[in-house]
Amino acid sequence: MPKLRAHNITITLDGYATGTDQRLDAPFGDGVDGLHEWMFAALRARDEGDEGAAGIDADYVELGDENIGATIMGRNMFGPVRGAWQDESWTGWWGDNPPFHHDVFVRTHHLRPSLPMKGGTTFHFTDEPAETVLRRAFEAAAGQDVRLGGGPTTIQQYVRAGLLDELHLVVTPMLAGKGVRLFDNWGDEIDGYQVAEQVSSAAVTHVRLIRR
Amino acid sequence: MPKLRAHNITITLDGYATGTDQRLDAPFGDGVDGLHEWMFAALRARDEGDEGAAGIDADYVELGDENIGATIMGRNMFGPVRGAWQDESWTGWWGDNPPFHHDVFVRTHHLRPSLPMKGGTTFHFTDEPAETVLRRAFEAAAGQDVRLGGGPTTIQQYVRAGLLDELHLVVTPMLAGKGVRLFDNWGDEIDGYQVAEQVSSAAVTHVRLIRR
Ligand SMILES: NC(=O)c1ccc[n+]([C@@H]2O[C@H](COP(=O)([O-])OP(=O)(O)OC[C@H]3O[C@@H](n4cnc5c(N)ncnc54)[C@H](OP(=O)(O)O)[C@@H]3O)[C@@H](O)[C@H]2O)c1
Ligand SMILES: NC(=O)c1ccc[n+]([C@@H]2O[C@H](COP(=O)([O-])OP(=O)(O)OC[C@H]3O[C@@H](n4cnc5c(N)ncnc54)[C@H](OP(=O)(O)O)[C@@H]3O)[C@@H](O)[C@H]2O)c1
Repeated sequence: MPKLRAHNITITLDGYATGTDQRLDAPFGDGVDGLHEWMFAALRARDEGDEGAAGIDADYVELGDENIGATIMGRNMFGPVRGAWQDESWTGWWGDNPPFHHDVFVRTHHLRPSLPMKGGTTFHFTDEPAETVLRRAFEAAAGQDVRLGGGPTTIQQYVRAGLLDELHLVVTPMLAGKGVRLFDNWGDEIDGYQVAEQVSSAAVTHVRLIRR
Repeated sequence: MPKLRAHNITITLDGYATGTDQRLDAPFGDGVDGLHEWMFAALRARDEGDEGAAGIDADYVELGDENIGATIMGRNMFGPVRGAWQDESWTGWWGDNPPFHHDVFVRTHHLRPSLPMKGGTTFHFTDEPAETVLRRAFEAAAGQDVRLGGGPTTIQQYVRAGLLDELHLVVTPMLAGKGVRLFDNWGDEIDGYQVAEQVSSAAVTHVRLIRR
């Protein structure tokens, strides 16, 4: 059975997956500068052939792309525009050729036409229920797994709906103080998850949560 | 200058330092069974001379006792009794000869006479302001540091008062879902702390936060 998986979801020591006041020049908002620095550093090291420095961090990042055929994300992860779209000029943070290369379902109450990009990525904007969006994503993935990209609000929703099978979490040693906490609003569904693995690099701690 | 230090404060992945409904047969309440298992396992291994298994976890535990001359704790850490004391039969979780061997200041609105125990520990019950209690503890410590024992509510109060110099935090790979979060109610004081060290064992991640 194909799975719904979230990967490389990074939280601060005090639990935040994003800061406050997300905007064009601060995609993660204030207070969380450097949240994903562990990831960039690991991928840089791998690019430069420095396997010692790339280590398990780079392995985990790459695992997040394996056997993924479609992605679901929240509208706030797609971009900094809030409310009604003024126009259709915003096409995501990722440039002309986004690194997905498959169908990406963006959950929003503000619909707009599907947006085909170079390299096989197409963004679809949908206000359908979580289950319906997931069914469409599984169809698009044609037997592969579906990635739940984030942000934290979207992850909380899929957890509460009982639909998230795996969560690879990364705890990075910094404090944010405010923002959206990954582990708020899970309700009783939190009891449905167990820690399947916990491994630390010099930089961060990786944890894999699996739905029982 | 002597410092106020908290050590071995253990939180779940979702941030809880204690569960709900603390009581005689569940000192940490529900939902956090095994929170300190990393600590017991490390100390057992050290006792048995198995230094490989004791490792840095046991080192960190012992660091928490070094150069400590007095302890401050909240009344809920002292015991499961809530509200007015029915009598003075409760003398703490730690038996006749508690492992402190110095003055321990218990913050409570329900005063009772000081309680001298075997081995040099005396429990003092006080409703004085955080600063006053700390001043008394520094006097009792006679030049050594003071330990802030917990629980999380008491730690939050000393953080907000700007009085906690060091916090050694341990993140253990489990989920609680409810209880008291260590990192709630820090207010702007959170910006006053920086991560001085982060080291992981096979079991847990240790983080040292230092006040700038
Ligand atoms: N820490 C990490 O690893 C990580 C990973 C990914 C993203 N992030 C960060 O997380 C932040 C975004 O997360 P977030 O929690 O603020 O928001 P989000 O989950 O990305 O998106 C929430 C938005 O989705 C739309 N939505 C929610 N429920 C819906 C429903 N039932 N039907 C239709 N639309 C719905 C709403 O937008 P509308 O107002 O348009 O309806 C809502 O504001 C960004 O800063 C991003 O960079 C962090
Ligand atoms: N995770 C860890 O490493 C760790 C470490 C230590 C403890 N713990 C656990 O934490 C739990 C206790 O923590 P907690 O946050 O619930 O409570 P706590 O911090 O131990 O104690 C709070 C109590 O202190 C008293 N108090 C608070 N402010 C006061 C003031 N200004 N003046 C006088 N008294 C004041 C009040 O008791 P009164 O009603 O008596 O006034 C209040 O209910 C226990 O389960 C313990 O086992 C965990």
